[in-house]
Amino acid sequence: MSTHPLDKALALAHSDIRAGLFTGATSPDYWNMVGPFGGTTAAVMLQSVLKHPELLGAPVALTVNYAAALEAGAFEVLAIPVRTNRSTQHWTIQMSQAGAGGQPHITTTATAVTALRRETWGANDLPMPQVPSPEEVERVSIGPARVAWISQYEMRPISGAIPTKWDGSGDHSETRMWLRDAQPRALDFASLAALSDTFYPRVWLRRAKPVPIGTVSITTYFHADAAHLAEIGYGYLLGRATGQQFQNGYFDQSAQLWSEAGALLATSNQIVYFKE
Amino acid sequence: MSTHPLDKALALAHSDIRAGLFTGATSPDYWNMVGPFGGTTAAVMLQSVLKHPELLGAPVALTVNYAAALEAGAFEVLAIPVRTNRSTQHWTIQMSQAGAGGQPHITTTATAVTALRRETWGANDLPMPQVPSPEEVERVSIGPARVAWISQYEMRPISGAIPTKWDGSGDHSETRMWLRDAQPRALDFASLAALSDTFYPRVWLRRAKPVPIGTVSITTYFHADAAHLAEIGYGYLLGRATGQQFQNGYFDQSAQLWSEAGALLATSNQIVYFKE
Repeated sequence: MSTHPLDKALALAHSDIRAGLFTGATSPDYWNMVGPFGGTTAAVMLQSVLKHPELLGAPVALTVNYAAALEAGAFEVLAIPVRTNRSTQHWTIQMSQAGAGGQPHITTTATAVTALRRETWGANDLPMPQVPSPEEVERVSIGPARVAWISQYEMRPISGAIPTKWDGSGDHSETRMWLRDAQPRALDFASLAALSDTFYPRVWLRRAKPVPIGTVSITTYFHADAAHLAEIGYGYLLGRATGQQFQNGYFDQSAQLWSEAGALLATSNQIVYFKE
Repeated sequence: MSTHPLDKALALAHSDIRAGLFTGATSPDYWNMVGPFGGTTAAVMLQSVLKHPELLGAPVALTVNYAAALEAGAFEVLAIPVRTNRSTQHWTIQMSQAGAGGQPHITTTATAVTALRRETWGANDLPMPQVPSPEEVERVSIGPARVAWISQYEMRPISGAIPTKWDGSGDHSETRMWLRDAQPRALDFASLAALSDTFYPRVWLRRAKPVPIGTVSITTYFHADAAHLAEIGYGYLLGRATGQQFQNGYFDQSAQLWSEAGALLATSNQIVYFKE
């Protein structure tokens, strides 16, 4: 069996120099317009934590800041467990690339919290919207152009699909869609981190105008454990994303991912630069 | 005129050793049950960026991770502009305290994005709920106990006030309240960062049960510029917070802060540990 494209993108080699230092490379399979799909970069940042020999528990929170454009090719990731408590661990993570002059520069920063979780009381105050089943919704390519990463996902938009007419007629910013990896792969924390960033920029929907954009920061909270994700396996997730405030060059969008059975697996927020 | 308690809490002295290194101290005025109010700590982290000589622009995003308990007393904050682009700047920030053996340890990590913002098209897709005016709503102390920080805020809960009977009868997790500093102070980015954390833990409301809690990470996005905040001055803000997923020891809560005129000034999310 060949390696899944996401596992290729997530491949990190331990460095001999220091624990937590890894080398990897951008993936052509997840290329976006002018760099890698940000969801993959977020997943790689998380993966460096998951592969760290001192890892405690499983991901609870991840914030990734896109500081500079990533170029195609090799990168380094350094994950540091800055604080380990009894049941929680706090991480700082940096990705860097060698510049034109061979001088490495930081492209991406992140923080993560991992934790040993115990069974407690629980409740979902953000129930899954009532929507048609995945089989009732047509699969489409919702990409703005022929970019590679889009074809790595099976997307079945229920509402708020990417505009087909860029005529400035937009009046809301909510998308609901069923989604999963296009090639079968069991759900895990890294793929969930990437899936949290699969919603196209809300400003395009809101304005029906394809202005230049770039995510500057994304924060994802994880509400499931590894066993639960593995059990979902290759099932569909319901994704919902909506814009909040669009103001002077930046807007934020809020997203949720539920299992088909209605479990809220991840909540995610990002703030995005836009032009004009 | 005496110094406002928040300005005392935010007081940071530049270090001679290196740019971006500051010394400060926890504030008794904002003491919580077993440490400083997390909102003040978030504001201090942001303040180190705002006081950095190389600052570009104004805050867009701030993520603060509470890695270890802060003890009463002195701390150091180190703010580093890891990447400065044409119109954006990416920051990593760490707070540390000297331990029992005099060995400094990291208590708090953060990342921030600041930016030069230009006027663009804008829209608010999260309009302010219709609520009674501040004058129509009674001022109350919504603290879980007599903790100092609560008295630094004027809070007028419209709905979802802290339970008065801890009888396990909770059935929702939404609070709406008017709020502002108790002692007059014009709104700015630091106070907005602190105000974003003034919502008591949603699990207490949801369960009507005061279980032990602790925020592990908070992310706030800023949607206004300094002039807009200054113009709001000492006006009331409408705050809304709601829980999302409560699961195996952690829950997330989402919050918004609007000006009385209905401008969405900040959106904030946090993930909180809870026991049982």
